[in-house]
Amino acid sequence: MPRSVVPVNLADKLARFSELWSQKRVAVLNDYEVKVAKLKGEFVWHTHEDTDELFLVISGRLRIQLRDAEVVLEPGELFVVPRGVEHCPVADEETSILLFEPTGTLNTGDTGGPMTKPAEVLD
Amino acid sequence: MPRSVVPVNLADKLARFSELWSQKRVAVLNDYEVKVAKLKGEFVWHTHEDTDELFLVISGRLRIQLRDAEVVLEPGELFVVPRGVEHCPVADEETSILLFEPTGTLNTGDTGGPMTKPAEVLD
Repeated sequence: MPRSVVPVNLADKLARFSELWSQKRVAVLNDYEVKVAKLKGEFVWHTHEDTDELFLVISGRLRIQLRDAEVVLEPGELFVVPRGVEHCPVADEETSILLFEPTGTLNTGDTGGPMTKPAEVLD
Repeated sequence: MPRSVVPVNLADKLARFSELWSQKRVAVLNDYEVKVAKLKGEFVWHTHEDTDELFLVISGRLRIQLRDAEVVLEPGELFVVPRGVEHCPVADEETSILLFEPTGTLNTGDTGGPMTKPAEVLD
């Protein structure tokens, strides 16, 4: 039997924390990170000037407000916010998401403020 | 009411084709692609010398054989094959996956051969 390598189980990772709006890194691909987070309520309007940002909903429901539009994501749905596009995520119920973006991308982009929090590593 | 933007629904995308071992691009993030594919049977041993490769299982079950180990992925589990590591995916049942890797990464890496197929765009 070959040695068995344990994959990343997203549900297991999500079960290990309850904190909201706190990104947890679960994998690295080149100079990109795969992160998970739990969201509830409204975040802050912000922009990532240098990168696109991918949201994939695992459970719950995420609304991504754009200045001229809105996208609603159910589980199994993803959306890429293009670089330079101001957006504000809102979760009316507790929602778990997967994020994919370059390593070091800050959650609040260019806005900063008290919600700013670097991703934590969840091994 | 703001204009509504339609997200990418992975199940809808997967319902649109039945071809095996044919990657379909469903989103772009910077110079990376999000792709889906349906797999059944054993692929070919190959290596991506220049990039890591992310596999996330959506349905079914994927075994990624490495030369000295094996990783088994159930739905909701992901694994990143590091660059330079030879691997061979095997799906004992039909399996749907999401892939994340740099744009233009070929499915057969450095091996080539009849299974080589550039990703198609599935808008």
